[in-house]
Amino acid sequence: MSSNAATAPALYRPESEVLLASTFGSQPIWKARLEERGLTVRLPGEDVSKVELGIVFNHPLGVLDDVPGLKAVQSLGAGVDFMMEDPGLRGRGVPLLRIVDPLMAERMATFCVWATMNYQRKCDDYFRAQMESRWDKSVENYKNVDNHEVRVGVMGLGLMGGRVARTLAGLGYEVSGWKRLPPSSGESSDDLAGVRVYHGEEEFLTFASNAQVVINLLPLTTETHGILNARLFNAMPRGGAVMNLARGAHLVANDLLEALASGQLEHAVLDVFVKEPLPPTCPFWLHPKVRVFPHMSSVTDIPNGVEQIIRNRELVLKGAPLPLGVVAEPGRGY
Amino acid sequence: MSSNAATAPALYRPESEVLLASTFGSQPIWKARLEERGLTVRLPGEDVSKVELGIVFNHPLGVLDDVPGLKAVQSLGAGVDFMMEDPGLRGRGVPLLRIVDPLMAERMATFCVWATMNYQRKCDDYFRAQMESRWDKSVENYKNVDNHEVRVGVMGLGLMGGRVARTLAGLGYEVSGWKRLPPSSGESSDDLAGVRVYHGEEEFLTFASNAQVVINLLPLTTETHGILNARLFNAMPRGGAVMNLARGAHLVANDLLEALASGQLEHAVLDVFVKEPLPPTCPFWLHPKVRVFPHMSSVTDIPNGVEQIIRNRELVLKGAPLPLGVVAEPGRGY
Repeated sequence: MSSNAATAPALYRPESEVLLASTFGSQPIWKARLEERGLTVRLPGEDVSKVELGIVFNHPLGVLDDVPGLKAVQSLGAGVDFMMEDPGLRGRGVPLLRIVDPLMAERMATFCVWATMNYQRKCDDYFRAQMESRWDKSVENYKNVDNHEVRVGVMGLGLMGGRVARTLAGLGYEVSGWKRLPPSSGESSDDLAGVRVYHGEEEFLTFASNAQVVINLLPLTTETHGILNARLFNAMPRGGAVMNLARGAHLVANDLLEALASGQLEHAVLDVFVKEPLPPTCPFWLHPKVRVFPHMSSVTDIPNGVEQIIRNRELVLKGAPLPLGVVAEPGRGY
Repeated sequence: MSSNAATAPALYRPESEVLLASTFGSQPIWKARLEERGLTVRLPGEDVSKVELGIVFNHPLGVLDDVPGLKAVQSLGAGVDFMMEDPGLRGRGVPLLRIVDPLMAERMATFCVWATMNYQRKCDDYFRAQMESRWDKSVENYKNVDNHEVRVGVMGLGLMGGRVARTLAGLGYEVSGWKRLPPSSGESSDDLAGVRVYHGEEEFLTFASNAQVVINLLPLTTETHGILNARLFNAMPRGGAVMNLARGAHLVANDLLEALASGQLEHAVLDVFVKEPLPPTCPFWLHPKVRVFPHMSSVTDIPNGVEQIIRNRELVLKGAPLPLGVVAEPGRGY
């Protein structure tokens, strides 16, 4: 296929198949689109003897264990945490790949702007008043909260978090950011002009004390597991809001319920959960201070994602380098 | 009070009183704040023999007729339409004054961004699913609509509409604008970089055919009365949204109900009504495709408004010129 195919390792085989294993609900759409592009797509339980690429999102653990020729595993989204957590993948040494899509960052920024404004302007309270045919000007009491009066703190300043922080700052919000590690040498501080950046554990509570709205966009790693907990909530100004748009396991659910009950927090937006779909018995569903979304804040554009998977698969099978940012780094955990 | 008081017309009298007449609900707050600043505030029905300034918002018609010393009428907001419609004020020749507050434009822009995103990302549908504890990924069907795919048309490009159009364009939306009159000579087109501007009746339907979301921020005049009607809705792309944030009389309510019933429109956001508070029997309250708000999209900041009223009153009583934009022009109707 490539002009230097003769010199590339003899790994590329047209008959090489893929295993698709996602619990995300869009699996039938992905299967059809990948088959339209000429791939032979196997599902869990089918013959995987010719499979060389796993394509997964929150896959059932174990489905990759019996794939003898596995050369790489591709996520259907930006996250790779569910691969890192798969004990069957540890030590196999296959690269873990993500989708890299700048429009996913814009989608996330749009959702975060909506969610911040929805809290700032009490739009849920107006909706509840409407449902009772009630004209209620006491909701904001003749005073719109202005953008510069809302202090937003973004946790995680990667492709997603950086874009969210810049977009909110551009709209006049007072934005700060927190990242777990110190600034890397190649980092451009211009990218986050107007955003005060806090670093590491030692600045975490200072960051929290300045954030009326906390938006979590961290990768899920051993270090960030459960980071949305009572310690954070209690350090925030009273009456704030927490938005978890990264992974369910970032949040200690009972701590959030307690913070909402005490009034320490006034509002939460939850788009991700440890168990998805969220079971109907979960108390978040009918909680008057919580907005629940079905993991939709920023979804992979399927046509774009299919093209990235086709490209990544060819590079992997040829043994060629993958584009910047595609391969997860097990050392840092994402 | 002023250093050149001796040369100013002898109109300034410390004992000059004001008449406050608003049906907006915030009247007691305004009264207290104006009194704190030393004004003697009369209400309708009280002795108005010393009143020289009327301060009104949707005032009961006739309350200004019996004020013998009326020198000016001040609106509590940006709109002056209710003064233009007061037959008792016609021919009296007193200046009609508005509040001019750049933060009101930002407040309106924030509301419009929220409302556009709320429609774009189907957040009301997610809320309804949540109320039934239903995890429903079919709402967007694994496809976020991106900002550049949403065509927004802003009617009225004054202080409010111009700011709204620029803010949405800055977020990546495809924004056009419509104004009733041709470009004025002093107008800077730089202010609306990135926004396609349509002018006048002859370009109105072309504007409409390119606007999936129509946001009305026109002043209410004879020419714009009822402009949100079936002709506009039918010219828009099917499945669009209309947001009326200006005045209730801009909208032909039955035309909107029919367009929503036929599916020509999918969504409406209504913040202003001919009769406010909106009567509980109005079908908009419980309409599943309509969000009703109690005239809150951009409210006057009361402390800032009080300072403008104090300043305008002193200038009027001294016969001094008022700041740019404060005095309504009866000729153009706003």
